[in-house]
Amino acid sequence: MNRVVLDAVGGDHAPDEALAGVAQALARGEVTPAQVLLTGPVDLVRAGMQKQGLPADIEVLDAPDLLTCEDSPTDAMRKKARNSIAIGIQAVKTGRAGAFVSAGSTGTVVAAATLGLGCLEGIRRPAIGAIIEGEKNPFLVLDVGANPQPKPHHLAQYALMGSAYYGGTFGIAEPRVGILNIGSEELKGNPLVREARQLMKQLPIKFHGNVEGVEVFHGDCHVIVTDGFTGNVLLKVSEGVAEYLLRATFGMMKQVGIPGEQVKKVQAGVMPRVDFSEYGGALLLGVQGVVTICHGRSRAPAFANAIRFAMRAMTAEVNQHIVQAARSITLPTAEPNP
Amino acid sequence: MNRVVLDAVGGDHAPDEALAGVAQALARGEVTPAQVLLTGPVDLVRAGMQKQGLPADIEVLDAPDLLTCEDSPTDAMRKKARNSIAIGIQAVKTGRAGAFVSAGSTGTVVAAATLGLGCLEGIRRPAIGAIIEGEKNPFLVLDVGANPQPKPHHLAQYALMGSAYYGGTFGIAEPRVGILNIGSEELKGNPLVREARQLMKQLPIKFHGNVEGVEVFHGDCHVIVTDGFTGNVLLKVSEGVAEYLLRATFGMMKQVGIPGEQVKKVQAGVMPRVDFSEYGGALLLGVQGVVTICHGRSRAPAFANAIRFAMRAMTAEVNQHIVQAARSITLPTAEPNP
Repeated sequence: MNRVVLDAVGGDHAPDEALAGVAQALARGEVTPAQVLLTGPVDLVRAGMQKQGLPADIEVLDAPDLLTCEDSPTDAMRKKARNSIAIGIQAVKTGRAGAFVSAGSTGTVVAAATLGLGCLEGIRRPAIGAIIEGEKNPFLVLDVGANPQPKPHHLAQYALMGSAYYGGTFGIAEPRVGILNIGSEELKGNPLVREARQLMKQLPIKFHGNVEGVEVFHGDCHVIVTDGFTGNVLLKVSEGVAEYLLRATFGMMKQVGIPGEQVKKVQAGVMPRVDFSEYGGALLLGVQGVVTICHGRSRAPAFANAIRFAMRAMTAEVNQHIVQAARSITLPTAEPNP
Repeated sequence: MNRVVLDAVGGDHAPDEALAGVAQALARGEVTPAQVLLTGPVDLVRAGMQKQGLPADIEVLDAPDLLTCEDSPTDAMRKKARNSIAIGIQAVKTGRAGAFVSAGSTGTVVAAATLGLGCLEGIRRPAIGAIIEGEKNPFLVLDVGANPQPKPHHLAQYALMGSAYYGGTFGIAEPRVGILNIGSEELKGNPLVREARQLMKQLPIKFHGNVEGVEVFHGDCHVIVTDGFTGNVLLKVSEGVAEYLLRATFGMMKQVGIPGEQVKKVQAGVMPRVDFSEYGGALLLGVQGVVTICHGRSRAPAFANAIRFAMRAMTAEVNQHIVQAARSITLPTAEPNP
C-alpha cells in the first residue's frame, strides 16, 4: 500500500499547518487515514491532531528530538538522532511508507535521505527539483541546489529523472525537456552545458534543446535541467523579483485610488503564484523512495499539495521508470560512486 | 571634450527612437549638439534627424553597411566592415569620442569593442554589466554574458570594475559589492565562488560577502558579481517572471471589475520597471573607452538614459579609477593575455 510519512514538526508553522494540510488532503479524498503516518514528539503531535480534528487512528511514529534552525544537518544526525526527519526516512527505508514529506531543513532532509535511502540504481547524484506554476503549464526545474558543481552526465541523469517524474505525476506521455542556456544556438553556453546537451540528445526523452531564461516561465518546456548553482539562483531570484514587483504594483493600485477591497481580491488571486517553491514542494529525485521538501513557511494548502504529489509519484511508479530509463544509457565509469 | 557617438541604426526601432532619444537628451541639457556624433548610412540618418527636429550641425559619420539580425559578429566585421558599430568604435579608438552607445547586436558590439579598443591596463577580460532598478537602489549586475566561464580572478576584476563604475556614475563613495551565491555561509557555493570570495576580501572595495538570489532586487547591494552564465540567467529569468506575473495581475484586475482606465494607470507606473535591461543599458566594462549596449527593443527614453549614463561615466573618469584599482592588486601571471 502506498503510504506517506509526514514530518509533523517541520517548518515555521508546524505542527498546526502541517496537520491542517493532512486534514485538507483527507477531506479531498487524496489519502485515507491509513495511508498517513506522522513523525514528531508523540504528545505534541497527538495534541495537534486533536486540534485539527484528525482521526485518532492515524499512526504517529515518536520522534522526541525536536530540531531547531540552529541544528546543522550533521548536528541533527549525530546529536539528535531521533528527530522527525531521521524517523521519517527510516520509515521509508524499512518499507512502512513509500514517501516522506517535510518542511524541515532542506540540508538535513537531503543528507538524511541520501545517506539513509541511497541512490536509485544507475543514478550517481540526487537532484532537488522544484515544481513551479508557469504561464501555460507547471514546470519542473532541477537541480535547484543539491549539487552546485555537477558533471555533464549528472545533468543527463537529471533530464531522465525529470522526464519520468513529470510524466508520471502530471500524466504527460512525453514531457518536453530543455536545458537552461544563455542563447538558442547549439554552441552557446559553457562546456558543461554543451557536453550535457550532446548526452541528452541520445536519451529516450523528448529533448527540446536550449531554453533561455526569458522562456522558462512560459511553461512550454515541462522540465528545465540546470546545475544546482544556477537553478538555485533561478528559483530565488524569481521569488525576489515577484515579491518586489507585486509590492510595487499593489502600492501603485492604492495610489491611483483603487479601493482596498479590490486590491485585496487581486492580491488573493495573484499572491499564491509567487511562492514558487511552495506550489508542489521541492523533490529530492534519485533516491530510493519519494522525498518531498516543502518550503519552511508552508501553510496547510502547500502541505496538502505535497501529499498529493507524493501519492501521485508512488502511484505512477516514478522511481521504477527512472531506473528503467537509466539502464538505457551508458555513463562514464570513471567516477567512483559517491 | 567628452563626446558620445551613437549608433543611429542599431535596435528594433532605429533610427527613429534612437534619434528621438538624442532629442530628449539635448532637451534635458544632458548633452550639447557638439557632444554628439552619429553613425549610420548618412542619408538615412540625416532624414531621421530632420524628422526628429535635431540640429543639423550634429556630425554624422557615414557607415553605409547596414547590419541585419542575420549578420553574425564575424560577418559584420568581415563582410560589412563599414557598419555603424565598427565606425562608432573606430571613433572612440581615434579619440573623436569617449563613449559609444548602440542598441545593435550585443555580440557584435562586444566583439568590435574588445578587438578594436583592447582591454584596460590590468584587466584580463571585459564584462557586461546591467544596471537594474531595485527596491531601494539601482544595482549593477556583472557579468551578464560576456564570459560564461570565468576564473576567480576575473570575478575579482569584475568587483573592482563594478565598484568604480557604480561609484562614479551614481556618486556613491563606497558602493557595497556582493558576490551572488546560494547561501549566506562562507563555504556555500562552488569552487569558483569560494575562491573569488577570498580574492575579493583583499580588494580596496566595500565587500559585503554573499548575496542570495532572493536579496538581489532589494537593492541593498549596489554591485552584484557573478559569472556570465548565471548573470545572464538572472537577468533573463527576471524579465520573464516579471512579464508573466504582471500579465496575470493586470488580468486579475480586470476580472475583479477594476475600470480599464485605472488598470492603465497602474500599468504605466509599473511597466517601465520590468524592462530590467533597459533602465540604463548594459555596459561593456574593462575596455579602453565607455561602451553602452541598449536593449534591442529600446525606445527613446532608454537611449536618452544610456547617453546620460555614458556622459556620467566619462565625467567620473570611471576607467581611470578602474586602472588605478587594478594596479593595487596582484593577479596570477600564468594566464596569457587573451
